[in-house]
Amino acid sequence: MSAELESRLLNFLVPWRNAPAWHIALSGGLDSTVLLHFLAQLASREALPPISAIHVHHGLQAAADAWPGHCQRFCDALGVPLQVVRVQVDDGASLERAAREARYAAFAEALGEGDCLLTGQHRDDQAETVLFRLLRGAGVRGLSGMATGRPLGGGMLLRPLLGITRGELERYARDHSLSWVEDPSNACDDYDRNYLRNQVLPTVVRRWPSAVETIARSAEHLAEAEGLLGELARNDLFSAGVRTEYIGMQLPSLAIAALLELSEPRQRNALRHWLASLARLPSSAHWAGWQDLRDAREDAEPIWRLADGELRRAHGRLWWLANPWLDFVPSNQTWHEPSQAISLAGNGLLRFEGEPPSGPLAIRYRQGGEVMVLPGRGRRDLKRLLNEAAIPVFLRGRLPLLWRADELLGVALLPDLRVESGQGWTLRWTPPTNDSGLS
Amino acid sequence: MSAELESRLLNFLVPWRNAPAWHIALSGGLDSTVLLHFLAQLASREALPPISAIHVHHGLQAAADAWPGHCQRFCDALGVPLQVVRVQVDDGASLERAAREARYAAFAEALGEGDCLLTGQHRDDQAETVLFRLLRGAGVRGLSGMATGRPLGGGMLLRPLLGITRGELERYARDHSLSWVEDPSNACDDYDRNYLRNQVLPTVVRRWPSAVETIARSAEHLAEAEGLLGELARNDLFSAGVRTEYIGMQLPSLAIAALLELSEPRQRNALRHWLASLARLPSSAHWAGWQDLRDAREDAEPIWRLADGELRRAHGRLWWLANPWLDFVPSNQTWHEPSQAISLAGNGLLRFEGEPPSGPLAIRYRQGGEVMVLPGRGRRDLKRLLNEAAIPVFLRGRLPLLWRADELLGVALLPDLRVESGQGWTLRWTPPTNDSGLS
Repeated sequence: MSAELESRLLNFLVPWRNAPAWHIALSGGLDSTVLLHFLAQLASREALPPISAIHVHHGLQAAADAWPGHCQRFCDALGVPLQVVRVQVDDGASLERAAREARYAAFAEALGEGDCLLTGQHRDDQAETVLFRLLRGAGVRGLSGMATGRPLGGGMLLRPLLGITRGELERYARDHSLSWVEDPSNACDDYDRNYLRNQVLPTVVRRWPSAVETIARSAEHLAEAEGLLGELARNDLFSAGVRTEYIGMQLPSLAIAALLELSEPRQRNALRHWLASLARLPSSAHWAGWQDLRDAREDAEPIWRLADGELRRAHGRLWWLANPWLDFVPSNQTWHEPSQAISLAGNGLLRFEGEPPSGPLAIRYRQGGEVMVLPGRGRRDLKRLLNEAAIPVFLRGRLPLLWRADELLGVALLPDLRVESGQGWTLRWTPPTNDSGLS
Repeated sequence: MSAELESRLLNFLVPWRNAPAWHIALSGGLDSTVLLHFLAQLASREALPPISAIHVHHGLQAAADAWPGHCQRFCDALGVPLQVVRVQVDDGASLERAAREARYAAFAEALGEGDCLLTGQHRDDQAETVLFRLLRGAGVRGLSGMATGRPLGGGMLLRPLLGITRGELERYARDHSLSWVEDPSNACDDYDRNYLRNQVLPTVVRRWPSAVETIARSAEHLAEAEGLLGELARNDLFSAGVRTEYIGMQLPSLAIAALLELSEPRQRNALRHWLASLARLPSSAHWAGWQDLRDAREDAEPIWRLADGELRRAHGRLWWLANPWLDFVPSNQTWHEPSQAISLAGNGLLRFEGEPPSGPLAIRYRQGGEVMVLPGRGRRDLKRLLNEAAIPVFLRGRLPLLWRADELLGVALLPDLRVESGQGWTLRWTPPTNDSGLS
């Protein structure tokens, strides 16, 4: 590697030189072979974190069976420890995507707290990624290509070669007489990425020899723009009183009125950044759901359905409810040992603070028509009590209600409703989480 | 055209149905032939502005000599008036660009106040434009492709077919038995755009049949993002006290301290939008000039040179000076008739308000060491007087100085410096404009 290339790489790695460990993702192909060789050489001259390699074996093709052995010999020669991880790939809609997901899951598992995983994607891969995403109609985020780094597991995924072309890597390999494996599936145009690499990009590069560079430069401009759109979104979300909790429950929400003061594109920008941390983003066609929800009648209960959950409108706010949270089905339960917390089916934990009331006690859920008798206030419809407390409609059906035979004794989240004067107990509810289950 | 296509086009044109006139740019090719035919048919059913066609004849190839006649026959058949404009194209660095510039200059000239020029660019052209700009490393603005409309001359350029594919236009032409001319130069891959159209896009579309649609969708996302970046820039420029004038002079400026509170990408975003109205934008490599200027020592007089002018730092502000403004060379002039304004060479107009002083009078420019004798204050160095008035250094050399023999009588822009007590005259300067000469 030329001195200039070496200094570019070193410069990139500066912020990570105090990590507990560097793991190099070693496929055995050109890119990761050069990366590992370069870092192993570097470690003999510079103080670096301990270096090791990790090879993921997908077992998808016969040729690949020889690769762990190749990687082992290469690592032995360099004196670098190697871990081979075998993963099973589900042959679903896209084999490419399934293999990538299995690979990254294996990497995430291998990373200790603060560790770095270094992968071999280079400039040509970046150009391919950008073109591929353009052909899927991506926006600024997608067209900014692969990031130079992002969190993975307990550590960081880094792509130190992203500024270096495949040609430069080939020169390095030649200069150091490195050998590497060629994945025979790379020659097969059945995969979209291979078709781009083998058919489209060569046609482009024949005319514009620096196309890989210029496309990557566009990606850098767009990454910068995406950062600015994020700044704008954070400001707008702050103005819209973004909250992650509601009475101790994990219920993210936003004030709709503040969003409505923004232009439509700015509403979408703010929502896109808010949703990005909660769920997979809707495609452009699905953004009509936001307009429907926003513009629905005041007394309507509109729902915007996404792949990972739903957005609801209640009390002037927009609420995010993840699929697992929505899957709740109420089921009545007897509370045999009120001195201990009861685990509610799909609905978290409930316990008493103070001395429990006498039994037999049961937990049931709202069906309508319930009445509560409150000292000094008399008989009250539960519906009216929930209205007074401004509990969102979507939450009412899952509030644990405490019963003794036909007597409604208490309602979770509403500790002020007390059926006895001088009542010594209060219901404490630990609701379930509201995550989409995305990593 | 299917009813659905027709309603899309009509919908697009709604805001322009009260324009004084619609001019259709008619090359005689498929796109503009379909556009004109469609609008001529439509005009028989709907109340539209008067429709006429304009054909620009570049005279670049023999085949093109037949096109004005073809266009005339087509327009005669439709009953639409046609104007043929012959333009001369300078064979410079890029013939494509020169031809385009000549064409648009001719269009701009043909447009009356509020008129619309309708051109035939379609969905496939948009996809080509985006790909082409990606191969030049464009950012969000460039990758958002052609706008559906923009100001041109005294009116608007509109692209009503931008949402319609070439395939749809071909179907329309077939259904209405239209004939059109084929530009033989379209088959020649010497032009970058033709290579993209003839070599690259077919390779892409073979694999992704809806590539033209998805690329255009990306462009729409980016146009929306560009709008948001513009909103962010306008807010940031407002906070940075953006001004277009300085003591009545056309000297755009910004407060640097306010810019420095922003992240670097946000500084660039604000500057890019500010500069866009003043000059052609610097390429990414040239943005280092901003850092140099910003980070120069307090007492330095840094300059950031762009193609159309310079940015200077003075008194905590960033100033834009266009090339014509910078080209000023001081030359002394005798003021023979002080009762009339004097035209200063390259430096605007100067006149007296009130009764001029007795002569002979002359206008000279600063050379250093000038002294002014002010009643009650005595002899003062001009340098100190300019410092007191906080006149930016770059402006001092072009301030007209009024002399009578060796006596400095007055300084433009500094009316408070009066050499006689009870002085009855004041110098009024109309400085030159500070435009880049961009349309």
